[in-house]
Amino acid sequence: PTEAVDLLDDIVATLALDLKVQVVMIAGNHDSGKRLAFGSRFFDRSRLHVCSAVVPGTVRLADEWGPVDFMLLPYADTETVRLELNAENPTDADATIRRRRDAWMPPGAGGNRTVALAHAFLAGGQPSESERPLSVGGTGAVATGNFEGFQYAAMGHLHRPQLIDGGRLAYSGSLMKYSFDEAGQDKGFYFVDMDGAGTLRQEFLPLRPRRDVRVVTGRFQDLMAGAAGGSPDDYLSFVLLDEAPVIQAIQRLRTLYPKTMEISYRYQQEALALAPAQRPDRSSRSALELFESFAEWSTQKPLTPSQREIMTKLLTDAVGDGGGE
Amino acid sequence: PTEAVDLLDDIVATLALDLKVQVVMIAGNHDSGKRLAFGSRFFDRSRLHVCSAVVPGTVRLADEWGPVDFMLLPYADTETVRLELNAENPTDADATIRRRRDAWMPPGAGGNRTVALAHAFLAGGQPSESERPLSVGGTGAVATGNFEGFQYAAMGHLHRPQLIDGGRLAYSGSLMKYSFDEAGQDKGFYFVDMDGAGTLRQEFLPLRPRRDVRVVTGRFQDLMAGAAGGSPDDYLSFVLLDEAPVIQAIQRLRTLYPKTMEISYRYQQEALALAPAQRPDRSSRSALELFESFAEWSTQKPLTPSQREIMTKLLTDAVGDGGGE
Repeated sequence: PTEAVDLLDDIVATLALDLKVQVVMIAGNHDSGKRLAFGSRFFDRSRLHVCSAVVPGTVRLADEWGPVDFMLLPYADTETVRLELNAENPTDADATIRRRRDAWMPPGAGGNRTVALAHAFLAGGQPSESERPLSVGGTGAVATGNFEGFQYAAMGHLHRPQLIDGGRLAYSGSLMKYSFDEAGQDKGFYFVDMDGAGTLRQEFLPLRPRRDVRVVTGRFQDLMAGAAGGSPDDYLSFVLLDEAPVIQAIQRLRTLYPKTMEISYRYQQEALALAPAQRPDRSSRSALELFESFAEWSTQKPLTPSQREIMTKLLTDAVGDGGGE
Repeated sequence: PTEAVDLLDDIVATLALDLKVQVVMIAGNHDSGKRLAFGSRFFDRSRLHVCSAVVPGTVRLADEWGPVDFMLLPYADTETVRLELNAENPTDADATIRRRRDAWMPPGAGGNRTVALAHAFLAGGQPSESERPLSVGGTGAVATGNFEGFQYAAMGHLHRPQLIDGGRLAYSGSLMKYSFDEAGQDKGFYFVDMDGAGTLRQEFLPLRPRRDVRVVTGRFQDLMAGAAGGSPDDYLSFVLLDEAPVIQAIQRLRTLYPKTMEISYRYQQEALALAPAQRPDRSSRSALELFESFAEWSTQKPLTPSQREIMTKLLTDAVGDGGGE
């Protein structure tokens, strides 16, 4: 969306131009790499370093201890890698990353510290529901060994913040929660400080969004009494503990919690988890019996004799019609 | 296509960074304005001025005679203008442009010369077939009066290069031919020199593409003997002067002219131009007569008696079957 493009434009301009901070970034699998790299020669002159190429980009920055070299390894699909590097059909994601890393040209002598920025699914990493698979077929996972020799690797792709190999490889994760599967994750980013020996000090700085994404479990009546906690403006998924469906539950919940996204029932989840043979058998009950129990549940009253008479007649007529449409 | 993005990136970087030329550009209706403007704060610092906003952008450049102010008026759809300028439903393209021009803030005093860059269909301009309409309904045309007071207006949208109001308003036109309708146009751009009094010297510099787009008229046999002229690698539309269809004409022409895009027959164009009552009436001829004339045209020989006998039998059988499938 154009609002996201505007926001990114604003953030990188504020960082690189106003605050004069060096910014190094790579394209992910949701970005149009070529578009993101448009103007990168202009950006380079003003502390913004963007890479979306198959052959990893190189940036040399410096601190009080000397130069630090960055390898920029953005997302690239296997077919593009095959074409650009003349690789004979890289067999999997790991071979593809290895091929690209080997094509990297470090910026020359003098640097003892190197940092990788890479978009990849590291073997051993914990995925979430909302990540788009990086490859069709196969796991798409790459070995951590590909980042041997780097003092630090700032990884992108997995949405869950996580440290690998004692923190030498780290995913900050997504800045926002992109599915209810991520409701329990703390979102934010790693702030990393490296000294002259390449020793890291790492701190996770949480980000608190305006609207949280939460899964809330409870009985309908309690939730309607305000038991959901947090902000009523959060994005909510309700798991209802009631033993039967509640009439118009989602519409009624939305009067209190306008951003209710979905509801489900614990008893249904449990029923679905049962093997078919364990599920209650309703096939032995007549149509009239099933209707009576539904009507009683809906109205909280049993059918009157005249109501039962009408229903009996209707059902007989329907069967008399052959049950067709 | 990403190749076009790469090419534009390369051209603006060469102009602004390598040749240190000031570049001023606006988004057209085929561009994603927001994407084109991404990073514009970075570009501005390096002589590249891009605008894709509803409120016209401003750039002040200077030459030996003092400042020259540019108004950058890119394409914007009516709905976006309505939302951003709180305009009460601009009724047409002209009102929309006027509203935007009035919102322009010139960069301050001191400038006696102003130049407009605008994407619009000027009333009186000559359109081509391949331009995408700028508005749904209406002509989309805007009055030249909107650019009153500007020493020069460099216009975009119409593909045909053309001067309006004695050259004070000018379309360079598209750099390439985008339909056979444009085959007869010379493509290129206006090189404009302005002196301290705002007097213009204008020169049209033609661009010669690697492959031309041409409409070639001739008889099939002559064309197959090489009569198409130009480069055989041009994009060609053939108008055949033959009085009857030529078997597999386009496939055979492509053996000589591989980028043959289409063929048509002059006699068919003329027949289509006739009123229905003037067209030859074939309904009075029998199926056998029609087949005989087709066979004679295809083989350059009349049917033999035995061929006619077979065909007569086939046609009788077909009619005997009721003519159905």
